[in-house]
Amino acid sequence: MHAFYSPQLTISCQEVQLPASESRHALQVLRLGAGDHILLLNGHGIHAEAVLDVVDNRRHSTTTCRILQAVAAPKPQPHITLFIAPPKSKNIDAVIRTATELGAATIVPVLCRFGVAKPDLDTIANWTKTVIAAAKQSHNPWFPEIKAPVTFADALKDAGAHGFFGAVPKPTDADSPAALPVDDQQQTSLWIGPEGGFAPEELSALEAKGLQPLTVGQWILRVETAVPALLAVVLDRCQHPRHEPAE
Amino acid sequence: MHAFYSPQLTISCQEVQLPASESRHALQVLRLGAGDHILLLNGHGIHAEAVLDVVDNRRHSTTTCRILQAVAAPKPQPHITLFIAPPKSKNIDAVIRTATELGAATIVPVLCRFGVAKPDLDTIANWTKTVIAAAKQSHNPWFPEIKAPVTFADALKDAGAHGFFGAVPKPTDADSPAALPVDDQQQTSLWIGPEGGFAPEELSALEAKGLQPLTVGQWILRVETAVPALLAVVLDRCQHPRHEPAE
Repeated sequence: MHAFYSPQLTISCQEVQLPASESRHALQVLRLGAGDHILLLNGHGIHAEAVLDVVDNRRHSTTTCRILQAVAAPKPQPHITLFIAPPKSKNIDAVIRTATELGAATIVPVLCRFGVAKPDLDTIANWTKTVIAAAKQSHNPWFPEIKAPVTFADALKDAGAHGFFGAVPKPTDADSPAALPVDDQQQTSLWIGPEGGFAPEELSALEAKGLQPLTVGQWILRVETAVPALLAVVLDRCQHPRHEPAE
Repeated sequence: MHAFYSPQLTISCQEVQLPASESRHALQVLRLGAGDHILLLNGHGIHAEAVLDVVDNRRHSTTTCRILQAVAAPKPQPHITLFIAPPKSKNIDAVIRTATELGAATIVPVLCRFGVAKPDLDTIANWTKTVIAAAKQSHNPWFPEIKAPVTFADALKDAGAHGFFGAVPKPTDADSPAALPVDDQQQTSLWIGPEGGFAPEELSALEAKGLQPLTVGQWILRVETAVPALLAVVLDRCQHPRHEPAE
């Protein structure tokens, strides 16, 4: 079933109008029409199966959806904040897509010392479009929130102490999976540095905060691979913890 | 340091000639010259730091590398075989790249009932080029072996009984991380179905073999996300097991 973004959707409403761009996509690209069943997502956890009810083909802007059943999806747990040094623009799209599919809650662009990109507000607006497209494809009703870019120091100051940072694999890495990856609010974080890596003082600050180095495999990962790989490991470690918390 | 493929490289050789295509890349694209340090990978676990020694700019085909130190990397553990229903050609490249970066040992294209692509030998040859490019970028000296396409039934018949298959997330999924993900040879596998999913009889056969369903997150993943995410979880579960094997 095709999914569409509906900011109007609430848990109790009976019908919604699709936004103009969603309506055009439904009617002109996907060639849907009256009676077709679709999925609606409001981006804040509500999803609903609906029927296209009134289709005005002259304007393409008055597509009405009759709600069959609206459901409130539980908030994603763990609540993962992805702190990421924005890579070059051709790679950020892949990063935003995979983070949305895997259910990251928040994405924070972080300006690191060795970072290459400093996104402006237009760029951030495009990221939001990518979030919506990826959420529709993956049927994720909780759209990740994209924050405005912040400096590394400000990001770390406001961040929680639970979580991981992507590290360069070293043969001597000790296994330290015992620390709980989430706080008591099920909040955790993943920090991904720029292509040139975190600067030494950034690494020291991450460790001093209590964040844990995380690697997967033995080789150098592109950011497009590191984000889904490390997000997946954080999710799996949170959802299937290795060690019970001490009594 | 830039990495290059050198099939001539052994643990004991003193110098090698770069293949013509690698030589052209070094001299014409990267503008390297005599005295520059490079990394050589033979694809079978040997890597070496080397110095470009003799550069014949008229032919671009006689680039000699003086070996400084050759090292035999241990075989990747776990030994992961990725069984994959080939997606459309624009997506397979991303899959091969991420599998190489994450250190998959073998990639087997599997022809599933709902599969969309049936790669021919030219296509497989292109996959090998992608493996080499990704291995150079990630400095992985163990190139994944790409097998010829096989039917689902033949693939399953010859496969080991340890491993996982990508499954559609269900809210009712029970947590079953207790089974050891690898056999006593550290062999495991990951099966990724086509976009339409494994057919019901394929799912039954995977379960009957003893393979475990694996999901990450709660939403639908594109194959470009599913491969790095699930490979990373398999690696992490093998390298940091939750439960000790019973005595």
